[in-house]
Amino acid sequence: MGRAQEEHEEERAGGRSAIRLFVEAALDARAPLALTPAQTHYLRSVMRQGPGDRIRLFNGRDGEWEATIESLTGRAAAVRPGARLAAQTPVPDLRLLFAPLKATTTRFVVQKATELGVGAIHPVLTHHGQTRRINVERLRVHAIEAAQQCRRLDVPQILPPCPLADALAAWPQDRHLLACDPNAGRSVSKALADGGDKPWAILIGPEGGFAPEETRMLANHQAVFLARLGPRILRAETAAAAALACFQAIAGDWR
Amino acid sequence: MGRAQEEHEEERAGGRSAIRLFVEAALDARAPLALTPAQTHYLRSVMRQGPGDRIRLFNGRDGEWEATIESLTGRAAAVRPGARLAAQTPVPDLRLLFAPLKATTTRFVVQKATELGVGAIHPVLTHHGQTRRINVERLRVHAIEAAQQCRRLDVPQILPPCPLADALAAWPQDRHLLACDPNAGRSVSKALADGGDKPWAILIGPEGGFAPEETRMLANHQAVFLARLGPRILRAETAAAAALACFQAIAGDWR
Repeated sequence: MGRAQEEHEEERAGGRSAIRLFVEAALDARAPLALTPAQTHYLRSVMRQGPGDRIRLFNGRDGEWEATIESLTGRAAAVRPGARLAAQTPVPDLRLLFAPLKATTTRFVVQKATELGVGAIHPVLTHHGQTRRINVERLRVHAIEAAQQCRRLDVPQILPPCPLADALAAWPQDRHLLACDPNAGRSVSKALADGGDKPWAILIGPEGGFAPEETRMLANHQAVFLARLGPRILRAETAAAAALACFQAIAGDWR
Repeated sequence: MGRAQEEHEEERAGGRSAIRLFVEAALDARAPLALTPAQTHYLRSVMRQGPGDRIRLFNGRDGEWEATIESLTGRAAAVRPGARLAAQTPVPDLRLLFAPLKATTTRFVVQKATELGVGAIHPVLTHHGQTRRINVERLRVHAIEAAQQCRRLDVPQILPPCPLADALAAWPQDRHLLACDPNAGRSVSKALADGGDKPWAILIGPEGGFAPEETRMLANHQAVFLARLGPRILRAETAAAAALACFQAIAGDWR
């Protein structure tokens, strides 16, 4: 059983039986849409769908729509949107900056960030980072897959990778940055309370932690709140999921 | 490169270069200890250690000790504890109850629960659970691996699996249970504030959610606080990591 099929089994087991696809096109009930070759393959060979079967579509702008498969061959599929099932929900104004990890771990971070309601994901290069090869298109595919599964109506934006120093130099005035560092003195809940109601971004360092010059740069930056995620050492991907969950519970849309 | 070696690479990249092993025996500086065959293999073939190399040991009771490898062959290893490096830290009084998932996902949950400071892990069987075959010994191996890597000085206890109804029937008077349910009206932070300072356990349902009779049973139980983890659908393993992080930040040892 392939990964996609395994995930389908999970979805069925979860009662999340509606197949949801992200499309780029505008959604309205008048015109059929052509799906991509990857979506066609997914519908036909993984999900065993056929003409007449119903799926759901979203595009990040027009809400969620029911749609009927009009044609489905080995090479092409057309679907026709029917009723709109849900209005578009606002995109969470929360960013995640992270130092890219191994491919499977990066996929995990993008998946969890999507589920946990991040609006934009920004890979940043740090001294101890595990890789400098970042395939932005691949990250976007992970984000789309996760959005399809967690019933989000949008896909987090993937920002172009850049060195951490550049991201800090160009940092906007109107956004706080919660930088997670095991050596920080302040707790996450304290940092979020201290920062107050501006929009936030969360920065997770690489497995090796920040280099001393990076910690200095962060400590001296006016937007940065250094904070620690408890007394145990977390893997970078655990830290990402944990920090995002804390943010949502304390200052975000889980309140 | 095998999984163990990959994780070694991660540890080195993370500057977490000390090899840490959990042992059952008492730790003191007088007598050498024999390691298990699995530990012997790990030291020799995965970590390429030899006699004279130094590692660290912990047993959940006596703190962390430096130790020197005295002998290491294909079949047996002996190590001699030297100096005690750290005193024992208290075991977090937080429990995780979860409906067992596929093997890889269960490993993930045990690993994250260990990193996030859970004292005991209790597999509970629910109507929509993905499996009824639970290998407690395997869960313990995952917990030991994770404790060795996250520098915990103890290993979470794995409690014997039982049906959710039995766990609720035998529930202790002095512990709250935060039951995560997407249909609950209360937020996690509200539930934790409402419950106050008793010890807590956190219950994560299966991928398919709780069955109606399970939700009823939870809603009617005096120890239970039903709460939701935000507006998006989380995978069960994401929910586990997210709820534990929220607990630690709001009511646990991350404050």
